[in-house]
Amino acid sequence: MTEQKVDSPPNSCNSVVPPPSLYAAAGVDIEAGNRAVGLMKAAVRATFTPDVRADVGSFGGLFALNDLPSQPLLVASTDGVGTKVKLAAQHGRWQGIGQDIVNHCLNDILVQGARPLFFLDYIAADKLVPEKVAAVVLGMAEACRAAGCALLGGETAEMPGVYTAGSCDVAGTIVGLVDQDALLPRPHEMQAGDLLFGLPSSGPHTNGYSLIRQVLTGRDPQQPLEDGTPLIDAALAPHRSYLAPVQLLEEAGIAVKGLAHITGGGLVDNVPRILPAGLRAQIDRRSWHAPPVFRRLLDWSGMTLDEAYRVFNMGIGMVVVIRADQKGLIRNVLPEAIQIGSLDASAKAEPDVAFEG
Amino acid sequence: MTEQKVDSPPNSCNSVVPPPSLYAAAGVDIEAGNRAVGLMKAAVRATFTPDVRADVGSFGGLFALNDLPSQPLLVASTDGVGTKVKLAAQHGRWQGIGQDIVNHCLNDILVQGARPLFFLDYIAADKLVPEKVAAVVLGMAEACRAAGCALLGGETAEMPGVYTAGSCDVAGTIVGLVDQDALLPRPHEMQAGDLLFGLPSSGPHTNGYSLIRQVLTGRDPQQPLEDGTPLIDAALAPHRSYLAPVQLLEEAGIAVKGLAHITGGGLVDNVPRILPAGLRAQIDRRSWHAPPVFRRLLDWSGMTLDEAYRVFNMGIGMVVVIRADQKGLIRNVLPEAIQIGSLDASAKAEPDVAFEG
Repeated sequence: MTEQKVDSPPNSCNSVVPPPSLYAAAGVDIEAGNRAVGLMKAAVRATFTPDVRADVGSFGGLFALNDLPSQPLLVASTDGVGTKVKLAAQHGRWQGIGQDIVNHCLNDILVQGARPLFFLDYIAADKLVPEKVAAVVLGMAEACRAAGCALLGGETAEMPGVYTAGSCDVAGTIVGLVDQDALLPRPHEMQAGDLLFGLPSSGPHTNGYSLIRQVLTGRDPQQPLEDGTPLIDAALAPHRSYLAPVQLLEEAGIAVKGLAHITGGGLVDNVPRILPAGLRAQIDRRSWHAPPVFRRLLDWSGMTLDEAYRVFNMGIGMVVVIRADQKGLIRNVLPEAIQIGSLDASAKAEPDVAFEG
Repeated sequence: MTEQKVDSPPNSCNSVVPPPSLYAAAGVDIEAGNRAVGLMKAAVRATFTPDVRADVGSFGGLFALNDLPSQPLLVASTDGVGTKVKLAAQHGRWQGIGQDIVNHCLNDILVQGARPLFFLDYIAADKLVPEKVAAVVLGMAEACRAAGCALLGGETAEMPGVYTAGSCDVAGTIVGLVDQDALLPRPHEMQAGDLLFGLPSSGPHTNGYSLIRQVLTGRDPQQPLEDGTPLIDAALAPHRSYLAPVQLLEEAGIAVKGLAHITGGGLVDNVPRILPAGLRAQIDRRSWHAPPVFRRLLDWSGMTLDEAYRVFNMGIGMVVVIRADQKGLIRNVLPEAIQIGSLDASAKAEPDVAFEG
């Protein structure tokens, strides 16, 4: 580890002690880390909510717990962006990766009913290039600001020999808050006849990139998809946040029974996670069009549709379970929501999913 | 990303849908991830404190906030183990790395007066070897249990092409709690004449490993140090936790004014972080013996003593600032504590450190 970001020693940039030449010769560039710290500090500070206690020189980030609900639960999640970072590196698109990791984590706690308090990041590379690190952190700061989430701290690590040349990994941890009474999902309230609405994804989000990279090898990444978007733009579109649409549902008085974030495993694995035993999600794949990027990947890879629905989100990034009588309301409040199926009784012991189309 | 650990989909191990062969051919081994999940689940569950809400199938870890102090502050810190993981990999010593990351993070929030609530980990590799992942997680679980800290969640990621063959990275995030009134450090209470006590480190902890690896290249890692310990054992000794000694100080009524965790930058960078302007830490390096492993590394590397004190902790892993009249008390309560220096007035605007010996 070379440097802590928010909690960097106050004197580390202007130390009277020069970076040890011997240590530098072993492959660790302390100055590069310090430059990156300078570049991203302003963007990070801009995410600080009033609850952040930003004592300079502290070793950990401080966050005051004010206005707590009666039965407060913290919800925490750590994730990475996977090999999407490799594709981003090949094309020099670093800022989107920062948005990816924040929104991925944010969506993961949103489905438990939580709202984000703060986020901490981890960026490691064979060699820290300050401009790249700063671009990733700027993307994180942008996504954090949009969500009212403080970018409270993090770590950048230069690890020669652990990462391949030019490679980088980006991970993060989010901590949010929910009252016990607002916790999701609510499987005991779900019943046959409840409706499943899907919210569009902005692309493959952060899943399926080992396959995507393999499929793209030797092909022109700039070639347009059928909607005119260059393939690489569609493939690297940042993971969107579902905070705003979920807040709209809440404000409209729609009783959300469950939310499923469609990540690795696709609709196949992630929808049953929120269902009780005895219910099956019946999803009609003809109810929406898989976006052009997924159709192109399907064409080129030769994978089956069933495989594709396990590897990719196929255009649906979040699934909402509601009562059937709130169908009109959700359509008014959230026109982007697509009715993709419903819950059926099932004889199986485990929650299940079945596809038509 | 292949798998979430605690929040793994309940049906991911026994899914009726086989892992897509095509996806596997792209280098992602879903089954390997699932096996690792099984191996470490029991150890993780054993860390769950009564505040953990372990709903199976949830996307994020849940932690109830009970018995809060009047002005609760969360303290959060993310860190990695750096290239120590590379040396551990070469020698198949995975469990210590798990202890390293937990105790490193724990010590980082301890110096702010916080006690740990929960920890989340991130383990990524070019290829997930379930037994290695399980060993790392067992080490984490052991350190978490010792600290009364829940291992609440985490992520393991298999990233072919991002990590070099056989490489792995281990990072983590800790969240702790402190009352505003118990926050450390207390620079406004520090004054000339206050004493600095050092608590012994258990080895290089997680700093200086790029240099250590370079120095060890081509040498016999099993050769004994002057105390008989094989060199590699001393070099890979897990980072110790300072929770128990700090609790002893507190219970004895010792008014700790500040704690400095000696990490990257050594005593040089980390002690001034907790001091106010106008004070200088005067440290006498003759007041303790640098342990054999540091002396050996110094010999072989040819680095200067000043460099060594910036790269390594040199045997002091935590520094405690107390009033001079509590000297007898700390010696009674904590015989391992070594008086290493005191605070002096300084004409410099910035806090400073000076060495004798």
